[in-house]
Amino acid sequence: MDGDNQLTTATFYTPVQNSILQVETRMRDVTNGHHPDLGAALEHLLSSGGKRVRPAVALLTGAMLGADNEKIISLAASIELLHTATLVHDDLIDGALLRRGFPTLNAQWTPGATVLTGDFIFACAAKLAAQTDSVELMHLFAETLATIVNGEITQMFPRQDDGYYDEYLKRIYAKTGSLFVLATTAPAILSSIRESTFDTAQRFGYGIGMAFQITDDVLDFTGKQSSVGKPVASDLRQGLVTLPTIYYREKNPDDQNLDIILCGKNIKNENLNQLVGAIQSSGAIERSMNKARQFVNQALEALDELPLTAERRALEDLANYIVDRRI
Amino acid sequence: MDGDNQLTTATFYTPVQNSILQVETRMRDVTNGHHPDLGAALEHLLSSGGKRVRPAVALLTGAMLGADNEKIISLAASIELLHTATLVHDDLIDGALLRRGFPTLNAQWTPGATVLTGDFIFACAAKLAAQTDSVELMHLFAETLATIVNGEITQMFPRQDDGYYDEYLKRIYAKTGSLFVLATTAPAILSSIRESTFDTAQRFGYGIGMAFQITDDVLDFTGKQSSVGKPVASDLRQGLVTLPTIYYREKNPDDQNLDIILCGKNIKNENLNQLVGAIQSSGAIERSMNKARQFVNQALEALDELPLTAERRALEDLANYIVDRRI
Repeated sequence: MDGDNQLTTATFYTPVQNSILQVETRMRDVTNGHHPDLGAALEHLLSSGGKRVRPAVALLTGAMLGADNEKIISLAASIELLHTATLVHDDLIDGALLRRGFPTLNAQWTPGATVLTGDFIFACAAKLAAQTDSVELMHLFAETLATIVNGEITQMFPRQDDGYYDEYLKRIYAKTGSLFVLATTAPAILSSIRESTFDTAQRFGYGIGMAFQITDDVLDFTGKQSSVGKPVASDLRQGLVTLPTIYYREKNPDDQNLDIILCGKNIKNENLNQLVGAIQSSGAIERSMNKARQFVNQALEALDELPLTAERRALEDLANYIVDRRI
Repeated sequence: MDGDNQLTTATFYTPVQNSILQVETRMRDVTNGHHPDLGAALEHLLSSGGKRVRPAVALLTGAMLGADNEKIISLAASIELLHTATLVHDDLIDGALLRRGFPTLNAQWTPGATVLTGDFIFACAAKLAAQTDSVELMHLFAETLATIVNGEITQMFPRQDDGYYDEYLKRIYAKTGSLFVLATTAPAILSSIRESTFDTAQRFGYGIGMAFQITDDVLDFTGKQSSVGKPVASDLRQGLVTLPTIYYREKNPDDQNLDIILCGKNIKNENLNQLVGAIQSSGAIERSMNKARQFVNQALEALDELPLTAERRALEDLANYIVDRRI
């Protein structure tokens, strides 16, 4: 509940509060006229407490760059739906029964219905992206979807023994960074100052996107189960190596519990808890957050080059919120 | 093998033989640079013997309407990939282990990998559609995807007791008609004679698409298992009511075997085989094929209004092939 209060009081939503409501409406409108059970499932998904950080990034960047507000609202809704669709398929793949403390679609529906609901949300996202009337944006949209899915597929296959750090950066770019980059570069495409802002917007989106995922991965180790909605170190429990584990391994290359996980073997719960405790108290958490802060600083440097408006100030707040949040 | 020979000798491919090869190349190129295992899965899917009827429709329509050949090739590849992606997810949902006599992805991979491969192919289809540089086409592409998926979802939920025929038409439009309509209207969008040809192209696509699916549904009752790659009446065995069954029911409203299936209850194999035999010998097959022929005739009437070229002649052959084929 701490986290929820923290979110409600986050100041960066202020300049786009009305637009966020229009994004909510647009996400719901796009599902109209279709099968009623599908409508109910979508309503469930859309009201399950997403923080709407990605729409906020798109709306603020669009307003800062003077892009057409109607198109930016469609874009923001499209990005949030694309994100939602990937979550629906992810939860199915992981067999997750809860997300953000709410039952997943997967927990209530058959796998078939869940696959199709995800597909339908992809289609709705594509419809909204097309409403921006920009071919360049559609290219970017399709490319981002391919990047996200390819990242998930790569994650499924056995990893190499070395290069965890480089692979991690690639993976979190595909998973999260790419969609934040879409949320900052697509508004540049829709603005009249595209040429002078696209690259800078890209650097800004990259920085906050990478910081967002690293912070998520840290919160997986440090967050309370009640706020995160998952058991502590749920990634590691599924054999997924994230930055705190990578930094821990650098200093503790001989930890046998970690070796067992890295070899993809089953580990006793007792040994896993021991490993989680060791990672938590090793300094790896702090080092990871320093890395996240580094990405935010790079983002802030890029932001400095963009037009100084109220929305730019809000994006600064948002960038800082990304690493300061507790959910 | 009969069917394969029939296909190889089908004359309608002749004017676009080279373009079809370019479509094959483009479908493979779009997957490059991604995860190798994914590449292998795509190669398996793309070489599993699709007839490429939809690309042929798009290529022939595009050439008939004088649309840019490069864009039409991207469009044709996009449509075939969209079709392939829906098949991958369908096979997963149905738990099918074979398609066209080849093992499905589903039979070899985990559900998760199969979901993601389908998603990746959707993304590739969207990338190719964006290569046409037409916003109107992207709208149509996204709308078609939504129609297809919504149709599949509708099929999943309990049907009403009456109105089978109307529901059937809606369902096969969503499943098959809509993609044929995309294959004929998208080339009109890309041509310089869009205004005078779009509606006619739509009628043509609708007619052949509906005829294609009705013929498929008839072949499910009449085809040899070796050609179709599925047991006879596989739809009915899964509780799916298609046109032959609807026509049979009109004349035999009291058939108790049929009632059991329509109520969604389990039926003994012996009784199911009895019902299949009754449908096969009832005249419902012939009446269904008459309906398919009617749709083809409507398509041919529309085609008559379009420019008289070698490709139009080929589209006539293709329309007739759709109802004359045995696979």
